[in-house]
Amino acid sequence: MDSVVRHRLGRFGFGADYNPEQWPESVWDEDMALMKAAGVTMVSVGIFGWAVTETAPGEYDFPWLDKVMDLLSANGIRACLATMTASPPPWLAHRHPETLPRRADGTVLWPGARQHYCPSNPVYREHAGRLVEALATRYARHPALAMWHVGNEYGCHVPECFCDVSASAFRDWLGERYPTVDALNDAWSTTFWSQRYTDFAQVWPPRTAPTFLNPAQVLDFKRFSSHALLECYLMEKEILRRHTPDVPVTTNFVGAWHRIDVTDWAPHLDIVSYDSYPDPHDRDTVVQAAFTYDQMRALHGRPWLLLEQAPSAVNWRERNAPKAPGEMRLWSYQAIARGADAVMYFQWRQSRGGAERFHSAIVPHAGPASRVFRETAELGAELARLTPLLGSGTAADVALVTDWSSGWALQGKALPASDLRLAEVDLAHYRPLWNAGVAVDVVAPTADLSRYKLVVVPNLYAVETEVAAGLAEYVRGGGHLVMSFFSGIVDGVERVHLGGYPGPFRELLGLTVDEFWPLPAGGSVALGSGGTGTLWSEWITAHGAEVLDTFTGELAGLPAITRNAFGDGIATYLATRPDTATLASVVARALSDAGVAPVLPGAPAGVEAVRRGEWLFLLNHNETEVTVPVPAGAADALTGEPLTESERLAGRGVLVAHTPA
Amino acid sequence: MDSVVRHRLGRFGFGADYNPEQWPESVWDEDMALMKAAGVTMVSVGIFGWAVTETAPGEYDFPWLDKVMDLLSANGIRACLATMTASPPPWLAHRHPETLPRRADGTVLWPGARQHYCPSNPVYREHAGRLVEALATRYARHPALAMWHVGNEYGCHVPECFCDVSASAFRDWLGERYPTVDALNDAWSTTFWSQRYTDFAQVWPPRTAPTFLNPAQVLDFKRFSSHALLECYLMEKEILRRHTPDVPVTTNFVGAWHRIDVTDWAPHLDIVSYDSYPDPHDRDTVVQAAFTYDQMRALHGRPWLLLEQAPSAVNWRERNAPKAPGEMRLWSYQAIARGADAVMYFQWRQSRGGAERFHSAIVPHAGPASRVFRETAELGAELARLTPLLGSGTAADVALVTDWSSGWALQGKALPASDLRLAEVDLAHYRPLWNAGVAVDVVAPTADLSRYKLVVVPNLYAVETEVAAGLAEYVRGGGHLVMSFFSGIVDGVERVHLGGYPGPFRELLGLTVDEFWPLPAGGSVALGSGGTGTLWSEWITAHGAEVLDTFTGELAGLPAITRNAFGDGIATYLATRPDTATLASVVARALSDAGVAPVLPGAPAGVEAVRRGEWLFLLNHNETEVTVPVPAGAADALTGEPLTESERLAGRGVLVAHTPA
Amino acid sequence: MDSVVRHRLGRFGFGADYNPEQWPESVWDEDMALMKAAGVTMVSVGIFGWAVTETAPGEYDFPWLDKVMDLLSANGIRACLATMTASPPPWLAHRHPETLPRRADGTVLWPGARQHYCPSNPVYREHAGRLVEALATRYARHPALAMWHVGNEYGCHVPECFCDVSASAFRDWLGERYPTVDALNDAWSTTFWSQRYTDFAQVWPPRTAPTFLNPAQVLDFKRFSSHALLECYLMEKEILRRHTPDVPVTTNFVGAWHRIDVTDWAPHLDIVSYDSYPDPHDRDTVVQAAFTYDQMRALHGRPWLLLEQAPSAVNWRERNAPKAPGEMRLWSYQAIARGADAVMYFQWRQSRGGAERFHSAIVPHAGPASRVFRETAELGAELARLTPLLGSGTAADVALVTDWSSGWALQGKALPASDLRLAEVDLAHYRPLWNAGVAVDVVAPTADLSRYKLVVVPNLYAVETEVAAGLAEYVRGGGHLVMSFFSGIVDGVERVHLGGYPGPFRELLGLTVDEFWPLPAGGSVALGSGGTGTLWSEWITAHGAEVLDTFTGELAGLPAITRNAFGDGIATYLATRPDTATLASVVARALSDAGVAPVLPGAPAGVEAVRRGEWLFLLNHNETEVTVPVPAGAADALTGEPLTESERLAGRGVLVAHTPA
Repeated sequence: MDSVVRHRLGRFGFGADYNPEQWPESVWDEDMALMKAAGVTMVSVGIFGWAVTETAPGEYDFPWLDKVMDLLSANGIRACLATMTASPPPWLAHRHPETLPRRADGTVLWPGARQHYCPSNPVYREHAGRLVEALATRYARHPALAMWHVGNEYGCHVPECFCDVSASAFRDWLGERYPTVDALNDAWSTTFWSQRYTDFAQVWPPRTAPTFLNPAQVLDFKRFSSHALLECYLMEKEILRRHTPDVPVTTNFVGAWHRIDVTDWAPHLDIVSYDSYPDPHDRDTVVQAAFTYDQMRALHGRPWLLLEQAPSAVNWRERNAPKAPGEMRLWSYQAIARGADAVMYFQWRQSRGGAERFHSAIVPHAGPASRVFRETAELGAELARLTPLLGSGTAADVALVTDWSSGWALQGKALPASDLRLAEVDLAHYRPLWNAGVAVDVVAPTADLSRYKLVVVPNLYAVETEVAAGLAEYVRGGGHLVMSFFSGIVDGVERVHLGGYPGPFRELLGLTVDEFWPLPAGGSVALGSGGTGTLWSEWITAHGAEVLDTFTGELAGLPAITRNAFGDGIATYLATRPDTATLASVVARALSDAGVAPVLPGAPAGVEAVRRGEWLFLLNHNETEVTVPVPAGAADALTGEPLTESERLAGRGVLVAHTPA
Repeated sequence: MDSVVRHRLGRFGFGADYNPEQWPESVWDEDMALMKAAGVTMVSVGIFGWAVTETAPGEYDFPWLDKVMDLLSANGIRACLATMTASPPPWLAHRHPETLPRRADGTVLWPGARQHYCPSNPVYREHAGRLVEALATRYARHPALAMWHVGNEYGCHVPECFCDVSASAFRDWLGERYPTVDALNDAWSTTFWSQRYTDFAQVWPPRTAPTFLNPAQVLDFKRFSSHALLECYLMEKEILRRHTPDVPVTTNFVGAWHRIDVTDWAPHLDIVSYDSYPDPHDRDTVVQAAFTYDQMRALHGRPWLLLEQAPSAVNWRERNAPKAPGEMRLWSYQAIARGADAVMYFQWRQSRGGAERFHSAIVPHAGPASRVFRETAELGAELARLTPLLGSGTAADVALVTDWSSGWALQGKALPASDLRLAEVDLAHYRPLWNAGVAVDVVAPTADLSRYKLVVVPNLYAVETEVAAGLAEYVRGGGHLVMSFFSGIVDGVERVHLGGYPGPFRELLGLTVDEFWPLPAGGSVALGSGGTGTLWSEWITAHGAEVLDTFTGELAGLPAITRNAFGDGIATYLATRPDTATLASVVARALSDAGVAPVLPGAPAGVEAVRRGEWLFLLNHNETEVTVPVPAGAADALTGEPLTESERLAGRGVLVAHTPA
Repeated sequence: MDSVVRHRLGRFGFGADYNPEQWPESVWDEDMALMKAAGVTMVSVGIFGWAVTETAPGEYDFPWLDKVMDLLSANGIRACLATMTASPPPWLAHRHPETLPRRADGTVLWPGARQHYCPSNPVYREHAGRLVEALATRYARHPALAMWHVGNEYGCHVPECFCDVSASAFRDWLGERYPTVDALNDAWSTTFWSQRYTDFAQVWPPRTAPTFLNPAQVLDFKRFSSHALLECYLMEKEILRRHTPDVPVTTNFVGAWHRIDVTDWAPHLDIVSYDSYPDPHDRDTVVQAAFTYDQMRALHGRPWLLLEQAPSAVNWRERNAPKAPGEMRLWSYQAIARGADAVMYFQWRQSRGGAERFHSAIVPHAGPASRVFRETAELGAELARLTPLLGSGTAADVALVTDWSSGWALQGKALPASDLRLAEVDLAHYRPLWNAGVAVDVVAPTADLSRYKLVVVPNLYAVETEVAAGLAEYVRGGGHLVMSFFSGIVDGVERVHLGGYPGPFRELLGLTVDEFWPLPAGGSVALGSGGTGTLWSEWITAHGAEVLDTFTGELAGLPAITRNAFGDGIATYLATRPDTATLASVVARALSDAGVAPVLPGAPAGVEAVRRGEWLFLLNHNETEVTVPVPAGAADALTGEPLTESERLAGRGVLVAHTPA
């Protein structure tokens, strides 16, 4: 299954969530005609179809779906068929209120929205499994079936449930992880604050407590919660596999921001899917999007599906901006450039009512005579010309390492600074790489790093000794590494690496961190170089590391940025959060040391240049026209026309240059 | 019942909440003497008297109230007698904790404050009804009884209850409103997010949920909640009517800000009552007060009662300013000018303890030798000279349309911009009218608009097609209309009017709104005219409308303010929230188009001129003296002295000019 | 027991919380060696030892503690032995979930942190008592036992519990306080808002309610809650006293900020103990610390124990700064100067895991080769030379009066201004005294004031008439008093002193406050003197008081600061919160009037001069060297060297001058 999309569709995935059950059948024929006009190749069907399909326990109403699947098939459109389990029907909560999830403070989350189920609840799972069995039985051989869409946005709204059923499941999970209750006590350091357990039955989820909870309890509960949702997914996948061993199974992830652990989930997906909702009001949003695409691609090291994006505005921010003319096309190409083999939208036809009636759709309230439909159809036509691209990959020289345990753990309180957020820190380190125009993979610390020339490691707070050793080994073997402060501090259950910070990285970095000196909120420290640091400083003793920059003030003269030759490689260390220019210069030096070149030397500011296989994408995020350099011998992949060495690119314009090897 | 106050009292209502049960009887005689000295004509008695009157279920202690009523009668003071049901005694919650209300997250609201009852609870209603029966039986013929004061500030603190009893009552209410569960499904668009019901029993109040609730569920629950309180009121009124068919029944509303739906309640009151608490720290507070008075008067189109105001400071804001010398008098006349036939206060004697011990009273903690008592008594003496005013009305040429469903719906989330608040928007549109000195009625969209020259319609977001048609009919017949953006979008259950925005107003306005373009929080857009817009912009295509102003930026050149000739009238449209000067100029042009003149041309800035029948009120909100023009032949209504054409009016001064027709 | 520490230890208390149960026994010998190297004399043992000591109900595991106690004894170190009841083991909540406390909104506070018990719960108390009995039995005669450490930081995280058990205990407490339910009704002014009770069983804790709760109910519940914790303490103390009548008993208070009422608790402690956690990021923190030390010392009028401070950083603020080199020593001497006979730390060895793994310790994660250990050991060596100091006292001429009832009551809402916080106000009045370098006792209003030349009384809002009379008596007898606004307003159950504000202080101050005029949030009022006031102003009529400063604006010309000769003394009154310079000048004049001299005339700015017995402490809070005057004949207490009249004192330096009388 080298290229899932090429194999199953033979063309780009292009389409939307299709919820025809919200509309009278009289509309469906128009839908088919418009889909064909728009170049739709695949739609996600039935995601919120449970209530209309299973109208009472075990009573299924499939004819509506039969008709939809037949219509799709008749019109050459394939289905990414949902298992419908993302939001249970009202009768389930009415009959089984114990399936409703609870917050840490005990608040029940009631029906009326979506995702109101406790992932560990056996009644929910039993009902979900029975529905999936019925769906798989009925549609296993349907010609429209292209792939399975399990659940929807797992953990988006209810990443954790604290109810009694979840408590019991948590205890079972702990029993699997820790052979004895004393192993648990040891891992969680429970002697502190008189928390020592004598039986697993005494353990609770980290519910609301008088003050700071045990950090290992909190962290393990996040792991358990991600795993409880994964069990739901796997339960469904097992049923689907049994019925349709050849049909790929996926589920759509909802962002890199530390709800479910996507690095743990990814091996269980046949293809990675992602829902991307950049905010047009945020100038930085394209960098954030690029980061997540580089992460999704790296999960499998293969193309992925952009399973949802908005045709224009969303509805769930405080102020919801539409995408300006050209912006949706530009951002779609950004996803393709960074590995997407599909561009799908939420949703096909804008809902008349319900919570997302103001979320944009391909067919708006006003109908297809609209800018959004027009721009979508134009993109559909373009993608039909880009089939050769499918399955092609991206070669990155740089890896940015991010770690789910660290991301979760840094959300905790009772740290030297409690406002470190790994998602923000990762972006702060990714941004200068994006600006430098180099290709990046966003990977877990356990990834094979040997293929990379440079590895950037922001705040790897929680790390096991053997994983840390792998990073050292990478540098010893000639790798280049940039690491930021508060890395290597604890193991996977929040126990400090004793003997001096940063435990397993001291030798690699050639220094010890004697004390953490967080700065006051809103405060900053001047650096010897003229730059400034915020948030954090450290009392460092260099043991061999070269000092690139120093602190002033209380820590005057002490190292702020260092560079250590280690084995055949070099490890750079940042003991503060430097200003943009300082960080850019540190990264630039590391890129230069490592011999990493930009994808397109000479690309103007605001132009994102990304290579995918034989194709070079030039994405102009400026609102005005620019001139871009083009490699010799390239042709416009959309028109086939040869390109000159210097091409004009309109504001928000895209150039896909085919540059055969 | 043309003038309830003239009929029942024969003079201005002037008095206060009188809670003698808080004081030893030895104080009551002094109370009577002071009331007479202050010119008190009526007091509200017994509002929080339930606990002292019904000391155990069914055991009543009336002698204290007999004595109070007799004392009042003996001193020529009438009673607005409360039904005492606003706050149940502790024994009720002790015996029936199920009567306590719950928040959306399940939190019980306990005794210790006030209003701690679930309006739908049958036990509460039964106890309340029994008490009212006893009160009505005992005092039906008492000579002091002037009118009935049912409950108190319904919905002020507990506008909605989410308990299981309320859930059941909500289902019954839905069953009345929707003939079948599928009618409910259709109205609520429940197919979205798998919310389709198969039985009313599956419906819950919009309790805390994982994410955005179904907007129709939320909106209908607000309607139900207002109705549940109205049922309490009506249950009591029915008892009172049976015993005293000729005694007027009222209850005091607490502001226009979308708790209970006063337009729904008003038909059930014999006279509208209102509690008004302007904030002396807020310069805009007199405009806000004027708005609410124009709304209260327009509910019945007849005079109303100012049933509560503070003699000086309140106690429930973060910082509670007293009213400066003259301010209480000035603001009292503002209410009278805008239709009040009574000026009442909370409360007579300042409480020694309890939650409102720092709320001002006519007799302060220091006793009657105080500024507040002195100013109150002076006002009482003045009002005794204004009896001819009673029952007179106000003729407004302008209507401002406000709509409860829209007000509630805009409180929702998941809108293009989630910080639109109709109360603020209404005020923003009322302010230029107040500044222009024109008379305004604040009315519901279903009101008869034919009597108005100009109708201003801010954010009529939720509107039924037939109501929208009425507005169009008004303009077609020669009316003038100013409408602001995001109007005509959904029907009464939050279903979008399909086919292009603003559904039922496209023809009237001569344009389509192709897309909503909310601005970033804190952002603004320059207008072609030099003004600025905030919050919102729109991509508009004019179909006949004249473009008065345009946007710059992403929507450069597209219409921002338009004017459309429709039938014999003109409809102006605002596609953004313009700055004060721009809005004032749009309103000025509309007033001019419509031929609306100010009440007193040439009135200085800060002087509010209001006509009521033959009386012209000139209210100087400035702290310094001004000179005001006076119509020829006018006399000072307080002194009887003739007035010249130009009179000096002290800072915070009032002139009531009698100008016979 | 004149000097508990001299009597029990014979040298300064110097040590830390010692939690060896968190570490393998192999570490304990190193601990002993390091303690001796650091000069440790006493450690607090077993504070969170319940779970490891009582592994199942009634099953005790004492050998580990036997070994620790023996080791300490063998090494000449004494134990402040904890009763271990501060945080119950998991099995207690598992077997008895009803022991868990609840918040006002009903939220249960679960295990996973610490202090998760309802103080009124009999099951908790029974288990706690049984454990204390076992501990006292076993260690009563152990030579290491120096004193008992009961519980830990009572009320730090759970100052109030609102569960049903607490509700029942609250009713019992009320029954003790009020002879009849009508006495309760009278005290609580329950006639207001229909809250009159007919049975104590109807009373609830002040749980979440629809709006402002009865203020007396809230205030009495705070008293009850403090008392419920005190009962826990006394229950344990009674057991300990029975077993070890001669061993002093203490518990560590956690700040003056109105959790438990330390003035009510102090009589039950054999020696006052205090946990002090100044924030190195806050320049004002040394003034705040001085305030609390002056309060702790004044509780008994005898030396106290600094039972916890951080060796460097804490972990529970948003950003946790370490103490800079010299800062811990400087601040330790500040505590000693202000009466501490012990300097103890949390904790000895930094935890590897758990919620406080980033709280500094004497032996950090890196081990003893660290700045923190080095500085601690140096201080230990110094203190060994200061044994003569033990037990010596401080003579203050100034008292600052603070009152727990007022502090609690001002946390309420529904006041003229709801953002008055007595802790802040007290500090605002203490700061100019600290700057002036005078010695201050922080005392309750019931203290014997006759020994003081000046008494400063910030916001004594709630005061009984007889207590107010005591203050007047003090002034009449020649005392000087400075009082700030909103004093003398209510009695101890929030009932206003009728007849004019400030009820019992009108004659003393020579004025009446006719009205409160709080300023708008963020607003200010100019004073006639050129200063400014914030937060508050008042309409004052002077009846004999001299007007020192006036208001401008609405209250132009009315008194803002007054000075009244009363009997043989003078009472100054502040009707606003003046700017720093104005307040300093008012305080300076009062000090001058009262004849109060600074401890060390001529001390440079930033140098804190404090006298304790024959010792004069000079604490340089500046980061740079200063020159300080030294009394003739003084010697350096640490070196024995004679001092000159002018000594150089390094930045963050300390000079302890011995100046025999």
